Amino acid sequence: MQEPTALSRQIASAADLSAAAADVLAQVRSRAPRVHCITNSVAQNFTANVLLAFGAIPSMTLSPVEIGSFVKRSDALLVNLGTFGTERREATSIAVDAAIQGGLPWVLDPVFVDRAPPRASYARDLLFLHPTAMRLNAQEFAALAQTETSADAVADFAREHRIAIGLTAASDLICDGARAVTLANGDALMAKVTAMGCAASAMVSACLAVERDALVATASALLIAGVAGEIAAQSAQGPGSFAVGIIDALHTLDAAALVARSRITWNG
Amino acid sequence: MQEPTALSRQIASAADLSAAAADVLAQVRSRAPRVHCITNSVAQNFTANVLLAFGAIPSMTLSPVEIGSFVKRSDALLVNLGTFGTERREATSIAVDAAIQGGLPWVLDPVFVDRAPPRASYARDLLFLHPTAMRLNAQEFAALAQTETSADAVADFAREHRIAIGLTAASDLICDGARAVTLANGDALMAKVTAMGCAASAMVSACLAVERDALVATASALLIAGVAGEIAAQSAQGPGSFAVGIIDALHTLDAAALVARSRITWNG
Amino acid sequence: MQEPTALSRQIASAADLSAAAADVLAQVRSRAPRVHCITNSVAQNFTANVLLAFGAIPSMTLSPVEIGSFVKRSDALLVNLGTFGTERREATSIAVDAAIQGGLPWVLDPVFVDRAPPRASYARDLLFLHPTAMRLNAQEFAALAQTETSADAVADFAREHRIAIGLTAASDLICDGARAVTLANGDALMAKVTAMGCAASAMVSACLAVERDALVATASALLIAGVAGEIAAQSAQGPGSFAVGIIDALHTLDAAALVARSRITWNG
Repeated sequence: MQEPTALSRQIASAADLSAAAADVLAQVRSRAPRVHCITNSVAQNFTANVLLAFGAIPSMTLSPVEIGSFVKRSDALLVNLGTFGTERREATSIAVDAAIQGGLPWVLDPVFVDRAPPRASYARDLLFLHPTAMRLNAQEFAALAQTETSADAVADFAREHRIAIGLTAASDLICDGARAVTLANGDALMAKVTAMGCAASAMVSACLAVERDALVATASALLIAGVAGEIAAQSAQGPGSFAVGIIDALHTLDAAALVARSRITWNG
Repeated sequence: MQEPTALSRQIASAADLSAAAADVLAQVRSRAPRVHCITNSVAQNFTANVLLAFGAIPSMTLSPVEIGSFVKRSDALLVNLGTFGTERREATSIAVDAAIQGGLPWVLDPVFVDRAPPRASYARDLLFLHPTAMRLNAQEFAALAQTETSADAVADFAREHRIAIGLTAASDLICDGARAVTLANGDALMAKVTAMGCAASAMVSACLAVERDALVATASALLIAGVAGEIAAQSAQGPGSFAVGIIDALHTLDAAALVARSRITWNG
Repeated sequence: MQEPTALSRQIASAADLSAAAADVLAQVRSRAPRVHCITNSVAQNFTANVLLAFGAIPSMTLSPVEIGSFVKRSDALLVNLGTFGTERREATSIAVDAAIQGGLPWVLDPVFVDRAPPRASYARDLLFLHPTAMRLNAQEFAALAQTETSADAVADFAREHRIAIGLTAASDLICDGARAVTLANGDALMAKVTAMGCAASAMVSACLAVERDALVATASALLIAGVAGEIAAQSAQGPGSFAVGIIDALHTLDAAALVARSRITWNG
């Protein structure tokens, strides 16, 4: 496990946050954190390619006999609940134990908990193990928190569970219970590519490996994904070429473009 | 579950069918049917992206503890037999029960039954549960029906099993035992992209969610796929860019282009 | 199972090898060998598309009840150890037995054995069953052979296990213990696309189906992959468009371009 940046930055404005995100991008590229991903089989290939383009090193095994070894040699963990079966639950249990013992940051993506009550119940169990961050959409939040989705409800939930939350939508909300950020970046085509949210959650894991402040790491990942999406949309002919283009854009994105394009509202 | 179009259209010509297909495309886009897919892990990502580009909402879990919840909240089901193991059989049993109880249309794709006798035997068992439609190729039909593939054999099989059959090849044959249609659309590159047939079967499921006439739904799906393939082939450099281009083409295809390009032979 | 080329060619120079590779490419395209792939779920889709673009016919089932039937009807087998669980071990045991009984060539890809000791141990067990060839990188070789990676260590290992080894890196080393070849083809973007090595291993399997000399088959596959990568890199905007482009390039690559671009050092 690599050491994340030792001292949290002082972030007091949107400009501070976009500068921090540019630095997080540079750190991911130079340190190439290893991110072990428990993710659904639909998302595995795209997620791995997004992480590689971002600068991280993905691994994806789910085998109970070896996942502990992989997580111990990793810098962050992603737990995505998609296409969830018995083997994945056993793997998750071992992986989360290894992450906690090793002091690794880990991210929960409770995908589609609004579609299956057993999955929502399992996600609530995992929250008691204190994931560092969680990325999800409004319907998933409502099913998980058993309340209507609002900025206040998200802040309450973040405080209660001591977690950074990234709620993705046309405008993203990132909140850790004390501070809140909204991001207006991104493109509508992001919702037309499968596993885009899952891949964004993996990017949050990669950022947490290099940045100790979970709000800053989560916001950085979603800002970088959103800006890459905007760049990809400029030359896309539809969701097929968009999915290819966002991987290219992640690979070539530079700090200046990231800062110039960022549309952040900071509520510190 | 959404209600499909209440009254079947009167289709009496190739022109009627292409107009119906244009309407089915519009219905899928406006109603965004949820399609639960039991499909092989090779095909999952491409199938999900094809469904999203088409306008439908895919889900893909195979976990026995939650697949029933997913199917109940869906508008159609796909059962593809690729990379089939014990967990998928258990999931299929639960999913088909839920589809039958909920009155959902469901599609069988008996992929590669010509390569493994146990798979053919399982596919024959599923036929007794009356899938709404089945998409397959000539070798798969021959293995399943234990006869040579011919238009008459397909018609006999469709009558016997009360099913709409989509037999895909250079020229597609769609038949429900009473009516038959051939489609000359498509491109040779479709056979060079893995999961193209699997994705077409998922499109049949999406069309059945909005169109009660299984022959019309099956023919609409295969016509839309074939025309999108032709459009993609115009700018493809090979099967890689073709696979990207067909997703773009599905997203941007308009009714006029669909009707103008359709090459249908109607045998009512 | 198809018969590979009956008589080994006499290869005595780099020019002989590039001519042989051009012939292997033509053989794969004309004979369309069936390659059954036990591979990780991250790699399945890309591997299948690479094999189709190359001219081979992939199948990927892992189900113990049917994998024997598939391997019996195949011309070569790939065993990749990624995302390895109980079902895959059982499938591997049945598949390798079927390959040995049928006299099929088979390839071992011990991916990430440097990350999990149980996986390295399992890979060593498989080596006692004499795979025809093995493709891996330097870290994986070091973990497997429990020695530092060097050309001499690779040659010793190849002799001891009577296997052709393809060690991929910026410069690839192919060695069967008696002869050694280095290839300077390829592009740095190949390391930024997930499953590129896995797909190269599948190409080795396809070449072994048509070429009995394992060194020639392994070198041909890696040369073809490297040259296709160079062609794809010419128009790529990043790893996303590169992954698409290498599939296009495999499909359109011609013998003259392959020979002209080859950068082979022959140590017969």
